[in-house]
Amino acid sequence: MQRYFVKENQWLDDLVTIIGEDAKHIAVVMRMKEGNEIICVHPNGQAAICLITVIEKNCVTAKVKEMLEHHSELPLHVTIVQGLPKGSKIDFILQKGTELGASTFQFFTAERSVVKWDQKKAKQKLVRYGKIVKEAAEQSHRNVIPTIAEVKSLAEVLKNCETADYILFADEELAKATDSPSLQTILQQIDIGAKVYIVIGPEGGITDNERALLLHSHANAVRFGPRILRTETAALYALSVISYEFEESN
Amino acid sequence: MQRYFVKENQWLDDLVTIIGEDAKHIAVVMRMKEGNEIICVHPNGQAAICLITVIEKNCVTAKVKEMLEHHSELPLHVTIVQGLPKGSKIDFILQKGTELGASTFQFFTAERSVVKWDQKKAKQKLVRYGKIVKEAAEQSHRNVIPTIAEVKSLAEVLKNCETADYILFADEELAKATDSPSLQTILQQIDIGAKVYIVIGPEGGITDNERALLLHSHANAVRFGPRILRTETAALYALSVISYEFEESN
Repeated sequence: MQRYFVKENQWLDDLVTIIGEDAKHIAVVMRMKEGNEIICVHPNGQAAICLITVIEKNCVTAKVKEMLEHHSELPLHVTIVQGLPKGSKIDFILQKGTELGASTFQFFTAERSVVKWDQKKAKQKLVRYGKIVKEAAEQSHRNVIPTIAEVKSLAEVLKNCETADYILFADEELAKATDSPSLQTILQQIDIGAKVYIVIGPEGGITDNERALLLHSHANAVRFGPRILRTETAALYALSVISYEFEESN
Repeated sequence: MQRYFVKENQWLDDLVTIIGEDAKHIAVVMRMKEGNEIICVHPNGQAAICLITVIEKNCVTAKVKEMLEHHSELPLHVTIVQGLPKGSKIDFILQKGTELGASTFQFFTAERSVVKWDQKKAKQKLVRYGKIVKEAAEQSHRNVIPTIAEVKSLAEVLKNCETADYILFADEELAKATDSPSLQTILQQIDIGAKVYIVIGPEGGITDNERALLLHSHANAVRFGPRILRTETAALYALSVISYEFEESN
């Protein structure tokens, strides 16, 4: 069943009003009729099966039929803190990271980032990124659309991360050299509901300077398997294994 | 250090001869000089640091300096049995699946596959796919290049899968409905060295008919988290959590 995220002020008792692009999607793309069912998701994460009562091109009205109990959100709040990668990898990380349950995406201008972040185009880009995560959230049946934070330097990100309960960073060499606990040992210490930052370098990885910043912020170096993953694959590994440990274990 | 897969007949005692595209890569793309070091990987998976002694455009000779002990292969032999997906998703699955440690890729013409497999173009396509996995294996520092099997129907794949110790298939509905064991319970039963098939439907999933075939072959339905993953994301989830369970646990 098609899923739509509907803003708070468009819910009134058991009536939901869908406007703008979503209304057009229902009327024109999906060619739905009155009496068809859709899933509407409230910003608080509550989803409901709704019966379409009126269809106009720019406005669709639906009536709540049944509240849904299905939980599709990761039990941890995971922020992917990703060094700005090249080309279309941002799109890829946003789409797949949303499917796999990320709460927030925080890109940072890493010392080894080849791409420079153009502040002038930022607003326009964030709109496009917002569409990618919204569509991926709908497609993967999530009840929350991940947020995309403004691009910062790693130092700025870490300065504002007092809310993080755990910070992990992908650093195979350090994880090996320091004989640090395994990824599983670390994940098993984390409580349900915790806020976890996963920090991933851009192509070429993080620098010594960035590593020092992370260690200063009490971040844990972890390894995502013994193979060398591309930067855009690391976030997916992290989210998959968090899902496995917290959603698919015994 | 740059890594090259070198065929068996190009090793002679402690001398390695690199020819063709790889030789050109060393001479022209990387602009290496005599005395530079590269990693050569024997088809048996053994890797060695080698010192370049002679560089010609079509032929590079190197001398083994040190055998490497690093193990970068997954402890299970994982075959990704993937319903033929649309567009460039095949490339994506091959590249990311190789990074994450897959041994074999077996695409199948699923009942819901929109793309038809053109047998006439098969040879040419398999050459291109072979390049993708070779490059991904080099980049991720693997010691084995995954194999790509010929495209078949699911029935044919299952007829020839007596060598598989476990067959898992992604089927959220069935996994939920039958109260089957968790993914972790299943993975923890699997012994090191086992051959595991992971079966993933195309866009739209597997059909009742295919599900029946799988159950007849004693396959286990599993869930890759409560979110709906796109077909190309499912294989990455599976490989990531197998790495986590067998390589990054306590």
